[in-house]
Amino acid sequence: MLPAALGWRAPRRGNAGGSGTLIHHVNAEDSGAELRGVDPATGGTLDPPYRESGSADVDRALCAASDAADDLARAPAVQRAAFLRAAAEELVALGDTLLNRAHVETALPLARLQGERIRTVNQLRLFADHIEEGSWVEARIDTADPARAPVPRPDVRRMLVPIGPVVVFAASNFPLAFSVPGGDTASALAAGCPVVCKAHPAHPGTSELAAGAIARAASRSGLPTGVFGLVQGWSHDVGLAMVRHRFTRAVGFTGSLRAGRAIVDAAAAREDPIPVYAEMGSINPVFLLPSALAEQNDKLADGLVQAITLGVGQFCTNPGVLVGPRGDALDRLSARLAERIGRAESGTMLYARLHEAYERGLDRARALGAAVLASGPAGTPGRARPALLAVQAERFLASPELGEEIFGPVSLVVSAEGQGELVRVAESLEGQLTATIHGSARELEQYARLVDVLRRKAGRLIFNGFPTGVEVGHAMHHGGPWPASSDARTTSVGSAAIARFARPVCYQNFPEASLPPALRNRNTLGIWRLVDGRTTRDDLPAA
Amino acid sequence: MLPAALGWRAPRRGNAGGSGTLIHHVNAEDSGAELRGVDPATGGTLDPPYRESGSADVDRALCAASDAADDLARAPAVQRAAFLRAAAEELVALGDTLLNRAHVETALPLARLQGERIRTVNQLRLFADHIEEGSWVEARIDTADPARAPVPRPDVRRMLVPIGPVVVFAASNFPLAFSVPGGDTASALAAGCPVVCKAHPAHPGTSELAAGAIARAASRSGLPTGVFGLVQGWSHDVGLAMVRHRFTRAVGFTGSLRAGRAIVDAAAAREDPIPVYAEMGSINPVFLLPSALAEQNDKLADGLVQAITLGVGQFCTNPGVLVGPRGDALDRLSARLAERIGRAESGTMLYARLHEAYERGLDRARALGAAVLASGPAGTPGRARPALLAVQAERFLASPELGEEIFGPVSLVVSAEGQGELVRVAESLEGQLTATIHGSARELEQYARLVDVLRRKAGRLIFNGFPTGVEVGHAMHHGGPWPASSDARTTSVGSAAIARFARPVCYQNFPEASLPPALRNRNTLGIWRLVDGRTTRDDLPAA
Repeated sequence: MLPAALGWRAPRRGNAGGSGTLIHHVNAEDSGAELRGVDPATGGTLDPPYRESGSADVDRALCAASDAADDLARAPAVQRAAFLRAAAEELVALGDTLLNRAHVETALPLARLQGERIRTVNQLRLFADHIEEGSWVEARIDTADPARAPVPRPDVRRMLVPIGPVVVFAASNFPLAFSVPGGDTASALAAGCPVVCKAHPAHPGTSELAAGAIARAASRSGLPTGVFGLVQGWSHDVGLAMVRHRFTRAVGFTGSLRAGRAIVDAAAAREDPIPVYAEMGSINPVFLLPSALAEQNDKLADGLVQAITLGVGQFCTNPGVLVGPRGDALDRLSARLAERIGRAESGTMLYARLHEAYERGLDRARALGAAVLASGPAGTPGRARPALLAVQAERFLASPELGEEIFGPVSLVVSAEGQGELVRVAESLEGQLTATIHGSARELEQYARLVDVLRRKAGRLIFNGFPTGVEVGHAMHHGGPWPASSDARTTSVGSAAIARFARPVCYQNFPEASLPPALRNRNTLGIWRLVDGRTTRDDLPAA
Repeated sequence: MLPAALGWRAPRRGNAGGSGTLIHHVNAEDSGAELRGVDPATGGTLDPPYRESGSADVDRALCAASDAADDLARAPAVQRAAFLRAAAEELVALGDTLLNRAHVETALPLARLQGERIRTVNQLRLFADHIEEGSWVEARIDTADPARAPVPRPDVRRMLVPIGPVVVFAASNFPLAFSVPGGDTASALAAGCPVVCKAHPAHPGTSELAAGAIARAASRSGLPTGVFGLVQGWSHDVGLAMVRHRFTRAVGFTGSLRAGRAIVDAAAAREDPIPVYAEMGSINPVFLLPSALAEQNDKLADGLVQAITLGVGQFCTNPGVLVGPRGDALDRLSARLAERIGRAESGTMLYARLHEAYERGLDRARALGAAVLASGPAGTPGRARPALLAVQAERFLASPELGEEIFGPVSLVVSAEGQGELVRVAESLEGQLTATIHGSARELEQYARLVDVLRRKAGRLIFNGFPTGVEVGHAMHHGGPWPASSDARTTSVGSAAIARFARPVCYQNFPEASLPPALRNRNTLGIWRLVDGRTTRDDLPAA
């Protein structure tokens, strides 16, 4: 058994990555039940064994995070940026070891994992660039007016500071980009917050390797080991103990509505409630307007089949419902989709429970009256077959459960009677990560009411495209009204994600020397600031 | 009895303000128990009678708000700004009627209320200016790259949009600036969110007058009546029904920890949890470093007595605890404070229950071992006597209840043994709106550890000043870690407060004509935008 996971001692050689360097996890030696990765394609368990973390491990990790918090908060942006870039380098340096381990633990194809590693590394570098640029702290300065009557106006200077230790729950479906070294970890570390990550139990080996990379990067960058900790295992209690821990200041999560809700509730029940950024369910509706159905029918079918079946449908942005006006054109599209989905290969899902939930979801939709237009060829047992379902809008509106996410390679065609019913379907939806409209620019104006409703429902509106593929940039918003995410005001993808892990502090009448560099008269950081209401990079005149 | 409060019908003449115009409240005619203002100075009830709202009234107000939401969201910034400025004008036009009513309902002096009206009007105008300038929507544009491999980069454009109907709970201690026409209402309306306000039951007449002013302003600005609604009464159930209503998208609150917690819990228990911005308790610690005690003893005493007794101590930023190194200088300051507080006039608190709570708080502190250094002269019964308490740091650290707020004109002197114990006292504190340090610039560097701890505990750090007096500007942060506020990431004072009532939406590959003006290539609004990571007001080249 792997010599598991000391309070920041280097374990013996021989762990999954074979790196032999500091692996940064928190289990007390020889405590905890054995935890093994499983190859979902075969059901076979994998070597080496790891250990389930317990609540004492959680306490140790969060105390270390708390001890490291001031150091990390005080570290200059260039040092934190160097840390993020070093983490990217260390991930790349793991080479095929990392990809192969992720492949056997998740059944995701190696090509996909290569792409995911590029994305993960780019995310770390994006945040490094973002904090080096530095304007993210939203510095605001209102200068003093000693002559103001009846009382002088004080000098007030505000900026964002790190919120404190952050707990990150890794996602099952992105073993890198939304897991241990993923967006939540990158944005929290960038903001200056120590991270304690709960590995997804379906990929303990991948998590261990990535955690080692981050720990080595911290060490190379001169930061204390407590800036990053890893917790392993299936136990919900351990996860909730992380949410409830007195030092935890915020939580990031990507996963199911059920697990997300449990975390949100635990955080809200604390004596001091803390923010939770949970990205949860979404069915990502696609609205097909008449011109698209008439003129783009074939192209639409291509794009939709790909979006529905990509990665065995295991994307948060999988298009789970396709809504169009009842008629020949929609029937033609449905037939095309059914024909292709009926031929589409089955695939191994990330882990067995997820596949079981997929099958239950299909059964539930059928029981609610959805017709099965296609179900992929009977394949190997244990592999999920892509499916296409259909229902009339009236039935959809009468059965809100049909609007719940079925995680996997399936979509439901909803045929609506004219624009009025189309809009009613949109109105009936819960909050969404995305909503898509296919049509002409002119139709977009004709359907302004639909756009209004969808803007209220979703975080990202897509025109003539497909929701899968979430661009990592400055303008991306990945989040939406409940249950898409628990906090629609924030994104979990893109540079704006850093704001989740910061809060403002203002300094009143502080002497220049005791102000943080971002708030001093001389703008040595060269950041954009709001000075007396004016956006500028200028220095202030010396007092 | 006043013919109370129809669903947006003009009531008959004869209400408190005698304005005879549209008063915008929501009670069904003749429903609800009688509700009367009370003069806290005499205990006598005031004319005219109002009515307690019921849950049907709440439903009516929030349905109207929801109906008005799209119109308000689509209204151009200039129209919303005109609405806010018209509300300011209408408030001023109420003249002495408003001030006199507020005076009899709260016992606050007219001079103070005049100042509060100026502040309230300035807040409305600040938000009008802020949305006319327009950069608050945080527009971000990542342009397309059709040549990118392996897939083209889409065009992604993000901005903030209104979150939807907002429920505002008015505060007792600011009948204007934190009540019906106060900061929460102003910032929510500025963001484009309809507001349903729960009047504080201690000032129903003031609330009715202010609501009429806002309703008239909406009408003058061509906005639907549903953009603002008023709910009256003492009932907690009605308040919680507002929080639980399906159309409510966010809540603003200023008041006690107990009431705030009930609201936070109700919002968290919803099927779709919503954000609550509750500003609650704070004891606003003041740390007195050796040089200030030695050299500024007299000046400190002046400032502290004023800050403690101002407005009968009924400020969120009242300095409730004074921490200094044990010794002659602190004793000298305590004696000075005791002497003056012992002579300070008693005062009528906002309402009887608040005065009772103040007396209970003093009893509790005494029972926990606090010594009474001074208690104002025995005055008229029912008036609160200013008080000064003292305790050694060791006792303070052993009794966390001594760190709880006593709302009223009292402060507790805590004497600490050296810098170590001073920092331990700071570490023991809960979250605070403010923390103040008096000393020299050099001491600020010597006590860097204290500053670090206080930055973690508080939203605003003040050097050589007093926490009372919250400047309304761009850089102000009024909020802090729990229990100072329920969401330390946001402020309830200053222009940044608008962000509480907005969420981002991004548009992917939308045609120019269907984009909101803030996101079009031509920057006709002249706002600051982040274009491909660069802060600019330039247009984009036409596509």
